[in-house]
Amino acid sequence: MAFLVKKYGGTSVGTVERIQHVAKSLKEAHDAGDKLVVVVSAMSGETNKLVSMAREVQPAVVDVRELDVLLSTGEQVTIALLSMALKELGVDACSYTGAQVKILTDDSHSKARIVSIDTKRIEADLDQGRIVVVAGFQGVDEQGDITTLGRGGSDTSAVALAAALKCDECQIFTDVDGVYTTDPRVESRARRLDRITFEEMLEMASLGSKVLQIRAVEFAGKYNVPLRVLSSFKPGNGTLITYDDEENSMEQALVSGIAFNRDEAQITVTGVADTPGTAFAILGPISELNVEVDMIIQNIGANDTTDFTFTVHRDEYQRVMDFLTSRQEQLGAASITGNDRIAKVSIVGVGMRSHAGIASRMFKSLSESSINMRLITTSEIKISVVIDEKYLELGVRALHEEFGLAESEVVA
Amino acid sequence: MAFLVKKYGGTSVGTVERIQHVAKSLKEAHDAGDKLVVVVSAMSGETNKLVSMAREVQPAVVDVRELDVLLSTGEQVTIALLSMALKELGVDACSYTGAQVKILTDDSHSKARIVSIDTKRIEADLDQGRIVVVAGFQGVDEQGDITTLGRGGSDTSAVALAAALKCDECQIFTDVDGVYTTDPRVESRARRLDRITFEEMLEMASLGSKVLQIRAVEFAGKYNVPLRVLSSFKPGNGTLITYDDEENSMEQALVSGIAFNRDEAQITVTGVADTPGTAFAILGPISELNVEVDMIIQNIGANDTTDFTFTVHRDEYQRVMDFLTSRQEQLGAASITGNDRIAKVSIVGVGMRSHAGIASRMFKSLSESSINMRLITTSEIKISVVIDEKYLELGVRALHEEFGLAESEVVA
Repeated sequence: MAFLVKKYGGTSVGTVERIQHVAKSLKEAHDAGDKLVVVVSAMSGETNKLVSMAREVQPAVVDVRELDVLLSTGEQVTIALLSMALKELGVDACSYTGAQVKILTDDSHSKARIVSIDTKRIEADLDQGRIVVVAGFQGVDEQGDITTLGRGGSDTSAVALAAALKCDECQIFTDVDGVYTTDPRVESRARRLDRITFEEMLEMASLGSKVLQIRAVEFAGKYNVPLRVLSSFKPGNGTLITYDDEENSMEQALVSGIAFNRDEAQITVTGVADTPGTAFAILGPISELNVEVDMIIQNIGANDTTDFTFTVHRDEYQRVMDFLTSRQEQLGAASITGNDRIAKVSIVGVGMRSHAGIASRMFKSLSESSINMRLITTSEIKISVVIDEKYLELGVRALHEEFGLAESEVVA
Repeated sequence: MAFLVKKYGGTSVGTVERIQHVAKSLKEAHDAGDKLVVVVSAMSGETNKLVSMAREVQPAVVDVRELDVLLSTGEQVTIALLSMALKELGVDACSYTGAQVKILTDDSHSKARIVSIDTKRIEADLDQGRIVVVAGFQGVDEQGDITTLGRGGSDTSAVALAAALKCDECQIFTDVDGVYTTDPRVESRARRLDRITFEEMLEMASLGSKVLQIRAVEFAGKYNVPLRVLSSFKPGNGTLITYDDEENSMEQALVSGIAFNRDEAQITVTGVADTPGTAFAILGPISELNVEVDMIIQNIGANDTTDFTFTVHRDEYQRVMDFLTSRQEQLGAASITGNDRIAKVSIVGVGMRSHAGIASRMFKSLSESSINMRLITTSEIKISVVIDEKYLELGVRALHEEFGLAESEVVA
């Protein structure tokens, strides 16, 4: 008997059969007494189909207001079909678009932010014993125009609804059965975590983004909505994401997981003036190119000059290199060098806050595998190093072993 | 420089290329100074695709509230794509769903009736020089639930918008270029009518329904909205449907067109009591079977009994025959007979109101072709006869000739 928001992504509702499968599990939970609000995405493939039609019509720049009108039809199809499937099983259900339950957002089409949700109709339906099915990813602005929340928006819709309705838990159903200590494709002994903290989940971005959207995690953290990641295809309790509290910290490991990212490229600008404004002179124009910068490292300089290194997505590498090279003189840089065959490996864990020596264990472990670290950055609960891409799997496995994350059972 | 509602059906917006083609003609009209509101249907095939998904989920009875949520996505896709296509051509445009411009309807899902339309936002956009693109077929009820208007609903949306906005004309673009004196596939010399009256158009139902929905014609007649049927694929002035006025009656023909319908079946109940209540005793239960009855004929009886004949769609013939046969005793009928190889042929024209002898010319013409008439019914501006189906083409051609409808030029 719990009050839950359950969110099903595109793959989980990708066909009529899968929608019927979801309806069946919802009926079971409903029969067991759970109060349920369900958030769904567009059937997998639908959004891409719609986007490609839009691109065909407007090859250069797509009008975002109209794109939102177009894309929001994807979830609208799913809410109708899922409500029908529930009724077919004898469960009373009612569907709502974002506009109908007034998921009020700002007017930033295609990346709108939720301002408020009117829960009156939802609560009235729940009181009638209905399952309420809400379209994820979409809202409506003050003017009544349809908006969408951008990538991963359905996760955000689910968390926002759980927060507004004060639900016990927001459950995100995906095609994986939880958050793992690392990617099981790289380390077969990776273990599913029963719990993880919001902070750790955020720092595991590169791992976690395959599971749920970082923005939804932030949102859940902000409103303290317990978030659970589960598989829509196999049973299990998934991974619960909550704040770290005494109760859970008993079994708190030092390191919760090993995240990694092989899509990075590193660029170093050497011999620039070690004065205020240099970092901005380099990164300002790059962010204007709409390139996202991940790691930024600047070490102590010598002779009034310093070296400045940052990483970008590998796809942007050449563009950024060309851009900086064309401005080398202007920047007064001695050289501009780069490497697009690197990978980032991170250890993440709230446990490391109170335990010294985690970093040195990490570096020792990598050096014992003869892996050279090119860059190092740290945050309170995360240590990241950049290594040659070819050593990625070796490094992840070494660290997984070092911090005792493996379980005896082999995960396929 | 006219204020127009232009409505494009599913075939006219069936592909991205066709949507772009529609956008081009709209731009031309807009450049020429026309003030334009555009109503569109779902891309052809889309509605059927959605309906079949719904049937897959709910094979027996589909929930109509959810079906409306589902189906309304079809037009929503088109309004977004058409607005994008207009913007791509440099014309400012804005799309609206039925809910957004508050096409307020009753709550009869899947066959809702329009109550009112809020024209404020549309008028504001028009004042800004925008083309306004509205989703046809859909509205919203008092509760904020999405409704659809049923078959041909987009035509009705267009007429309702033209009435609410007091437009000069409502133009319905289809895949035919107007209303013909009869079906050109049956009589190659059929001629496109420049004008026809609302009443004639209504009586030409069986011809007209291939062109536009009768409900929209009724609606246009009620609010006196001049309605024009045109082709979206070839240029031309189409057929204008208006009230008969002195100005037009100059060239008024006695008979405007020959309508026909080959999908009918005839059922006769003989020897029933010639008393009040008999007709209802027969037809009441049939309408409860949700069978639509077309012609109803009862002649003067003899010996306190009478014979009662009606026609239904051929697909319903067996069901109705079985039903009545099972109740023969209860009805006190001498026999129940039927024929599902019949066809109905009608001559239609407001001109016949003031001219005697039209009926006799019709009967003479058919008899000269040795065609036996099984049933005859008449209204003020229409005479219908039921004949054996095999004589249909022969009869249509004979009447087309008799009333001088052919033109010298052969229509393919």
